[in-house]
Amino acid sequence: MSDFTSTLAAFAAGPITTTAQARIVTSLSVLDWVAVGRAGINEPVSTIVRDMAMDEAGAAQAHLFGGGAAPLRTAALVNGTVSHALDYDDTHFAHIGHPSVAVLPAALAVSEWDDRILVDLLKAALVGMETSIRIGLWLGRGHYQNGFHQTATAGAFGAAVAVGRILGFSAGQMRQVLGLTATRAAGLKAQFGTMGKPYNAGMASAAGVEAALLIHKGFDPNANAMEGPFGFGATHQGAADDAAALDGLGDEWLFESVSHKFHACCHGLHAALEAARDLDIAEPEVAEIKVNTHPRWMSVCNQMSPTTGLEAKFSYRAVIAMQALGYDTALPGSYSQKVCADPRVKSLQDRIVVEADEALSETQAHLALLRRDGARLEATHDLMTPISLPDREDRVRAKASKLIGTDEADAIWSMLRTGGRARDLAAKLAG
Amino acid sequence: MSDFTSTLAAFAAGPITTTAQARIVTSLSVLDWVAVGRAGINEPVSTIVRDMAMDEAGAAQAHLFGGGAAPLRTAALVNGTVSHALDYDDTHFAHIGHPSVAVLPAALAVSEWDDRILVDLLKAALVGMETSIRIGLWLGRGHYQNGFHQTATAGAFGAAVAVGRILGFSAGQMRQVLGLTATRAAGLKAQFGTMGKPYNAGMASAAGVEAALLIHKGFDPNANAMEGPFGFGATHQGAADDAAALDGLGDEWLFESVSHKFHACCHGLHAALEAARDLDIAEPEVAEIKVNTHPRWMSVCNQMSPTTGLEAKFSYRAVIAMQALGYDTALPGSYSQKVCADPRVKSLQDRIVVEADEALSETQAHLALLRRDGARLEATHDLMTPISLPDREDRVRAKASKLIGTDEADAIWSMLRTGGRARDLAAKLAG
Repeated sequence: MSDFTSTLAAFAAGPITTTAQARIVTSLSVLDWVAVGRAGINEPVSTIVRDMAMDEAGAAQAHLFGGGAAPLRTAALVNGTVSHALDYDDTHFAHIGHPSVAVLPAALAVSEWDDRILVDLLKAALVGMETSIRIGLWLGRGHYQNGFHQTATAGAFGAAVAVGRILGFSAGQMRQVLGLTATRAAGLKAQFGTMGKPYNAGMASAAGVEAALLIHKGFDPNANAMEGPFGFGATHQGAADDAAALDGLGDEWLFESVSHKFHACCHGLHAALEAARDLDIAEPEVAEIKVNTHPRWMSVCNQMSPTTGLEAKFSYRAVIAMQALGYDTALPGSYSQKVCADPRVKSLQDRIVVEADEALSETQAHLALLRRDGARLEATHDLMTPISLPDREDRVRAKASKLIGTDEADAIWSMLRTGGRARDLAAKLAG
Repeated sequence: MSDFTSTLAAFAAGPITTTAQARIVTSLSVLDWVAVGRAGINEPVSTIVRDMAMDEAGAAQAHLFGGGAAPLRTAALVNGTVSHALDYDDTHFAHIGHPSVAVLPAALAVSEWDDRILVDLLKAALVGMETSIRIGLWLGRGHYQNGFHQTATAGAFGAAVAVGRILGFSAGQMRQVLGLTATRAAGLKAQFGTMGKPYNAGMASAAGVEAALLIHKGFDPNANAMEGPFGFGATHQGAADDAAALDGLGDEWLFESVSHKFHACCHGLHAALEAARDLDIAEPEVAEIKVNTHPRWMSVCNQMSPTTGLEAKFSYRAVIAMQALGYDTALPGSYSQKVCADPRVKSLQDRIVVEADEALSETQAHLALLRRDGARLEATHDLMTPISLPDREDRVRAKASKLIGTDEADAIWSMLRTGGRARDLAAKLAG
């Protein structure tokens, strides 16, 4: 068969050739995911979902962020939710979503339970995340723009495939797990801005685990439930663009171009913060800063005078002022009521002007700094510009160090690069 | 607020006035559901899903069909799947689905865990099933025709509301649970004819329990995620017809017109079997039987010469011959390879002619019996014709007696009609 599901299934179950870039980026995403998850342990949504898991008790099959263990499906639900609670995990623009938060909780839980080595986990996770991205492309922008949250919908398929790979699925079983996931995958953007957003990620991860465990036990679903007039694509306003999704599959790893977030705020602010970083702004010199950004972001993250930490996370003026004044925008704790009330932040904020600019893409920002001495400096940043592997490693490890301490970040990185068992990594979720 | 979600939430949380008809039909549906679930315990899909639950172990919060207990979410998944495994549970034509299999597993699990009396369970279940039907109407035929399985999609909302009612939700919490369920509800008709169909019911039931438990713990989702351009209705090809859904809400119980299945075969055959029952056919007299049915069914259940039990369940000729020859069409075990090979069945089958008839609705069938003595008898049956309450009670209790024995059926019926605790009913799932 040469349909979409069969092609993806053959890739997911078959021999793969990875690149050094893909392997290192995957390891960096695992480190980033552990660090971001640990930083999210005490968020209210994390506490609620963990609490439900604790009530259920059950076999201690897989570790949870925040300590304790739970059955596989539940661990995926909890860890997916916790690791997306801060919205600080990795993003892929082609996937239109966050690949790690749906796939890694599922892949790690099952790798730990099956006592696999980390190399197996990394390979299965890479295949799963690549599958999420390919399915994200297959569904296309219409699926997202009409209301579906690709992190959750495409993510569930990626989680299912990653677990299937750990369990040694044949191509036939991969087809089955994709077909079964088609009836379970869900998630609406209507939940953005609420606890429902991180829950969508946990839900996707749990859906993938559940589907894969059932197929492993001999469940016999319709394996062709992704394509066709009644399949997941057509019913969920997907483009079902096979060519876009399958181009280069197996030869090229789209996951290599995943973005890591280096600021604990809305992604719409990141290009501007990177451009400001290039300008190395010193507050006393600033007469005015003009920020140009894609019009889409004006209604998303242009809070003019934020007063709470959450509002600051959606404010160009606040985050650029914070960075210039030495607040660490990588730390979630930096965004607070206190920082909003800091007179130096307020003063600098009043010298920052934000303008929509049709000429920029959604991943670009342009900054113009007018200094008090009359000098005018400019910088443009595009988040799509590839970051060199050494730079990326430095920045992800620095971010992880800030979130969980250098000793822990280094220990996890060393484990990922030198090998070891999945269960030792899983034990690091406790925090 | 007067939006759709708020109106439904106010109904679901508020004081209700039931009718004797609604109360008795609900009790009959509970008896029918227990009997059908017990009859489905050993189906392959039941074994697989139960097996996953057993691996997870966990707090013994709620009984399972087939024995043992599991946490609430898992019990709902298992019991929803098992009770839909034979596709022999109740159906509602306006809902376009099976209301009991999504709602009752959720409502019973939580009632047992919270040690509630059966009256509370029955009331919550009625409100949940009425909600499923109303949401089924709101989504409309387009949602179903385009590929969604209303039993699962609308069913998840009904399950959530039933659990919310047991947990004492305010109208605000009901809005929240509907909003959270909107991001989790799923299920495709593409799974029809496979294990995925009963799984859809279990999945819906578990989704409702999960959403309600999270809201109970303080989860704060977007409560307005059903309506609007990015809500569940619009994203899932629903008509979002508020007027159709809300007409008579609170005054009229649409659940009263639920249909119980009295033959363990495809629903498309039931009107013909009922008409044949009216004719009281004796095999030796038959020269020819002409069956007229809606054209839709010709591709669904008109197997000409079935050789397996499954094929017989989709064959007008086989089931009418079986009934005339005294095989009990209410027993799943009657449909077998052996019955297909019975020369008497084969001989009578060859005297039965099936024709599509545009003049009939999907719920109607017309039979014309030509006797060897030249007499011609005719009968028409419409499944939409209301069945009197005493007749319905007789037939549901007779069906339950056949499936689980008269003693058990009578004990459950007496429990439901005279009161008692939900946990005593739950203990009856073991079989």
